[in-house]
Amino acid sequence: MNLAADPGVGLVSKQTFSAAEFKLTSGHIVQDLNLGYETYGKLNERGDNAILITHYFTGNSHCAGRYSETDIEVGYWDALIGPGRAIDTERFFVVSVDSLCNIGARDPRVITTGPASVDPTSGKPYGLRFPLVSIQDFVHSQRLVLQSLGVERLHAVCGPSMGAMQALEWGATFPELTPRVLAVIPGQVEADAYLIARVGSWMLPVLRDPNWKNGEYYDGPFPETGLADALRQITLDTLHYDWAARIFDRRPHDANKHPAAAIENRFAIETAISDVASVRARTADANSLLYLAKCVQTFSLRPRLQNIRSKVLILPASSDLLLFPAYGSSTFDTLRGLGLEVQLQTLEGTGGHLDGLYAISRAQDTIRRFLDS
Amino acid sequence: MNLAADPGVGLVSKQTFSAAEFKLTSGHIVQDLNLGYETYGKLNERGDNAILITHYFTGNSHCAGRYSETDIEVGYWDALIGPGRAIDTERFFVVSVDSLCNIGARDPRVITTGPASVDPTSGKPYGLRFPLVSIQDFVHSQRLVLQSLGVERLHAVCGPSMGAMQALEWGATFPELTPRVLAVIPGQVEADAYLIARVGSWMLPVLRDPNWKNGEYYDGPFPETGLADALRQITLDTLHYDWAARIFDRRPHDANKHPAAAIENRFAIETAISDVASVRARTADANSLLYLAKCVQTFSLRPRLQNIRSKVLILPASSDLLLFPAYGSSTFDTLRGLGLEVQLQTLEGTGGHLDGLYAISRAQDTIRRFLDS
Repeated sequence: MNLAADPGVGLVSKQTFSAAEFKLTSGHIVQDLNLGYETYGKLNERGDNAILITHYFTGNSHCAGRYSETDIEVGYWDALIGPGRAIDTERFFVVSVDSLCNIGARDPRVITTGPASVDPTSGKPYGLRFPLVSIQDFVHSQRLVLQSLGVERLHAVCGPSMGAMQALEWGATFPELTPRVLAVIPGQVEADAYLIARVGSWMLPVLRDPNWKNGEYYDGPFPETGLADALRQITLDTLHYDWAARIFDRRPHDANKHPAAAIENRFAIETAISDVASVRARTADANSLLYLAKCVQTFSLRPRLQNIRSKVLILPASSDLLLFPAYGSSTFDTLRGLGLEVQLQTLEGTGGHLDGLYAISRAQDTIRRFLDS
Repeated sequence: MNLAADPGVGLVSKQTFSAAEFKLTSGHIVQDLNLGYETYGKLNERGDNAILITHYFTGNSHCAGRYSETDIEVGYWDALIGPGRAIDTERFFVVSVDSLCNIGARDPRVITTGPASVDPTSGKPYGLRFPLVSIQDFVHSQRLVLQSLGVERLHAVCGPSMGAMQALEWGATFPELTPRVLAVIPGQVEADAYLIARVGSWMLPVLRDPNWKNGEYYDGPFPETGLADALRQITLDTLHYDWAARIFDRRPHDANKHPAAAIENRFAIETAISDVASVRARTADANSLLYLAKCVQTFSLRPRLQNIRSKVLILPASSDLLLFPAYGSSTFDTLRGLGLEVQLQTLEGTGGHLDGLYAISRAQDTIRRFLDS
């Protein structure tokens, strides 16, 4: 893409929403709520052109644009969001909010409230004293941010992966405010046993790290080895064998240290995913990973399914090995069984779960039509 | 199955094969080779009715029958092997051999030589001083056992998963001795990048266990937590979401400790796979897991593919999430591209990778015809 010719939303910045108190669905009250958010485009006078983007497990509200002219990375759905793109910022006011317990709690560009936050009553980080949260709590927190921006009713809620869970939860929690839901690489309408176990295995490396200390590590050292192993597992789960074979094949990491020669010698793919994970671990928070894993495991729309009134577009990825295309079909069947207007289109590709992020432009026209419908 | 009416091969026992020396393909020489094996049926006078069964990653040579009248478990392919079954022990002499570096090194019913064995030169367990081995070394060791039993040429080699790698390696290493290869839930003709990474993530929990101590743990305590976490991951990788949903659904492990109430509260599927893994870890050896993982990662028939002359039957499982059905198709395409007589049939089911073990009787007739061909 020629940046000079098509800069998308251009430069963006993170804002902060604050509230003195936030009541969770569990009844617990969180003091001093702070959440980052980004907006692109403008709210119209009728206040009815807002689209909320809900982010994935390891993501945050940075879904389009760049933070500076020299920023080499754009937000994860930049291909989808911008002037003339399917989520057209000439027409729509786009809002995205950093999740509660965001995994990037140590990233200066993420603003979140969770186990890494300072408990105002003790002056020390919460650790596991922070109450567990749910996908529905994310939705309630996003509602507050939207209200502070003058948005009462949404045009649509759109999100990939854990973001699709939130988008569907919007439909179930605030049916009158949610005419359209775009669920990209979604799970089923509740986490199934296999997903529960898979996400559970992301938690284990953190729980085993001797530096984790039952969550009391904020004085340091941080449990970065366990966190990196967890992020390595997540990375692997979001890939696909065709993609991995094409990029890495069977190359050793070091041609002079063949993997057949010693236990510690590695193939290129092994060091590549470990290195990426180690870098990400530096700005991530281990306890927050546990809290988000719980959110996914305990996600269930079942008690509120009957509330949904939204039109729904479901976009699974054909090569997804984490939230399988069959999960998207299951959600489609469930929602159609409720008599809803629901549409299913598969993102064909070999990029695995990540096709829901980086191959989203393949569905540009479908999404455009859906938002116009 | 009515045991009284159809006892299969009945009671079986493990034998030991020993050799003073065994030369690995790497050039290293292993002293005092000891390998367990089992046989069912009888070798005929011409010595041409032997079928070798090669086992999977966490398995051993116990593929049929029971060790005692009160033994509640039969060998893993009992449904396939026995009088009148596809691998008919009235006709065939069936042999299976415990692998080198077998993961069950601490199981009294497994006899193996590997990192947990005592190095005769030092009188202490080898640990990481044991040389790395390969799938081809397994094949060479099996050849020695077969020769000791008077078997020169095989009727067939049959194996699931890592056993399929060995079966194909027989065809590539001893083409004159291997007229038929049955490859059940196989990989590709070499481990691809994704499988390398997945198997690599089985190694990590062992490498991180503080008790692992670079493999020097035989004085105890053993790195059983890391080993159990690795076995948990392996177990999960061999399952399928439909099976998991049917058996476990979203039940909490303890109805009074709901997973949404505390970080440590678990769903039933989480504790079930962890508990199974912990039990298995008690008779398993952590270093041996690392050695077997290396065998799978470094597996490549590529340099010897042109040697193969065998007829090949490939049976992937439709719901396999570890060695995907596409891997079986890839192996089929590769072998057919070499002009070989190769047949592909998919085991339809929702049991995941494990369908190659526990749903094998669905292919009973296909296997019978193949062995008669």
